[in-house]
Amino acid sequence: MITLSLIGIGSGNPDHLTRQAMRAMNAADLILIPRKGEGKADLAELRRAIVAEVVTNPANRIAEFDLPIRDEATTDYRRRVDDWHDAIAGVWADTIAAQLGQAGRVALLVWGDPSLYDSTLRIAARLRPAPQIEVVPGITSIQALTAAHAIPLNEINGPVTITTGRRLRDEGFPPGVDTCVVMLDGECSFRHLPPKGLQIWWAGYAGMACQITESGPLDEVCERIVARRAAARAEHGWIMDIYLLRRAPDHAKP
Amino acid sequence: MITLSLIGIGSGNPDHLTRQAMRAMNAADLILIPRKGEGKADLAELRRAIVAEVVTNPANRIAEFDLPIRDEATTDYRRRVDDWHDAIAGVWADTIAAQLGQAGRVALLVWGDPSLYDSTLRIAARLRPAPQIEVVPGITSIQALTAAHAIPLNEINGPVTITTGRRLRDEGFPPGVDTCVVMLDGECSFRHLPPKGLQIWWAGYAGMACQITESGPLDEVCERIVARRAAARAEHGWIMDIYLLRRAPDHAKP
Ligand SMILES: C[S@@+](CC[C@H](N)C(=O)[O-])C[C@H]1O[C@@H](n2cnc3c(N)ncnc32)[C@H](O)[C@@H]1O
Ligand SMILES: C[S@@+](CC[C@H](N)C(=O)[O-])C[C@H]1O[C@@H](n2cnc3c(N)ncnc32)[C@H](O)[C@@H]1O
Repeated sequence: MITLSLIGIGSGNPDHLTRQAMRAMNAADLILIPRKGEGKADLAELRRAIVAEVVTNPANRIAEFDLPIRDEATTDYRRRVDDWHDAIAGVWADTIAAQLGQAGRVALLVWGDPSLYDSTLRIAARLRPAPQIEVVPGITSIQALTAAHAIPLNEINGPVTITTGRRLRDEGFPPGVDTCVVMLDGECSFRHLPPKGLQIWWAGYAGMACQITESGPLDEVCERIVARRAAARAEHGWIMDIYLLRRAPDHAKP
Repeated sequence: MITLSLIGIGSGNPDHLTRQAMRAMNAADLILIPRKGEGKADLAELRRAIVAEVVTNPANRIAEFDLPIRDEATTDYRRRVDDWHDAIAGVWADTIAAQLGQAGRVALLVWGDPSLYDSTLRIAARLRPAPQIEVVPGITSIQALTAAHAIPLNEINGPVTITTGRRLRDEGFPPGVDTCVVMLDGECSFRHLPPKGLQIWWAGYAGMACQITESGPLDEVCERIVARRAAARAEHGWIMDIYLLRRAPDHAKP
């Protein structure tokens, strides 16, 4: 029997690692590392550095693998993603079979927390025979954002919606809430909202050494964020950013 | 100058502690511990055990303090909470002044993550002169829930709303989302929803040694959860529980 441990490693700060994550890494017989998963050399490097620092069990093997490429010829988005997930599951299965055979503990390091906008659980569900799946929670980029600004996520007893840049563009500020967190936004989608009465707290590389933040009334800081994001992206070659939007200026302070 | 570090300790599993949390605890001159904060002896004990295990810096002082009682004679809810927060800030200020005077690093251990349904940041904002506030993120009970069930929080690129038991009762399933997470629910408020097409993933004591879980179509598991929660609460003297609700049965699997 194969046990597959999906280990949240936090959002880029190696000190986000929990004791549970460090134990699970050391308990693994095999750690699978995607060679250029996010297309960002820095991030593959971070995973390698974490493993090198944390793993002390000499019996533990590390296997790097190349992520398959998405077939952009498949026009249907859902189908394209499905095929890609199948291909990744195939690479995992082959690597596990070659390294461990039919039994052992395999670990995968997942950015942030494995439950949040991440496909690892869905890919793992395709493996046959089905492995035993364990999840080790990690610090999400949402928490890295609120920690960076030292702000509460919610208003007192208030609800919060987590959404994507695309949905914010297509659907506007989510209904029924005063607070929303936006992830997976390559296009500064906050630019398209009517800014009146909105406050924003933004962070790039939240929690990382190169963290950058901006906050204020959306109409005042909007252009500054757009410019800063572009400059940072040009400098590093990549960026991950996230932001919280809150309605009603009198609630802006914690 | 006083630096106040609000340290997320995770949701009851001592192995949720991050390296950043352990470093921040050791860097503190003074750690403030509420004696019976949550009215639950187990939880005060957990904080003490964490400090005893993690803090190796001999210069570090621990001060326990009694949380002031909420004045139930104040009828306005908001006012009652405001007064209570003022009183807590007063106790912190007195303890810090007595132990450290005007300068030093103070740490407070916060359940889960300090940003999520927690008043520590709001209380800290009342301190005068204003301290430098730092937040160390922690594993939330939301992630302890999704890890317990090994499920994704969101559907593919889908939004998620986090809300409270009271709002679920008063307002029903939140608009515009297929997934919602419910916290702060002392009354199994899911009972009042039309169960058709809803799946639930429920956990009590998520992430802790005594974790209990249930999941399935809401109409099938609803009564079982109500009974199990009551029995667990009677057994332990307290319970913290959380659940995820998802619309549409065909999305139930990761
Ligand atoms: C594929 S999702 C993975 C999220 C991850 N599982 C988590 O728990 O945060 C990637 C998105 O997360 C956000 N993100 C992840 N790490 C971040 C960081 N360090 N700073 C800012 N945003 C980050 C960005 O919105 C990015 O587009
Ligand atoms: C005052 S809030 C604090 C939340 C905390 N800051 C966090 O990050 O999870 C308390 C609520 O969190 C949830 N909760 C906290 N710890 C939990 C646990 N170990 N298992 C289940 N629910 C938990 C329950 O819904 C509880 O009513």
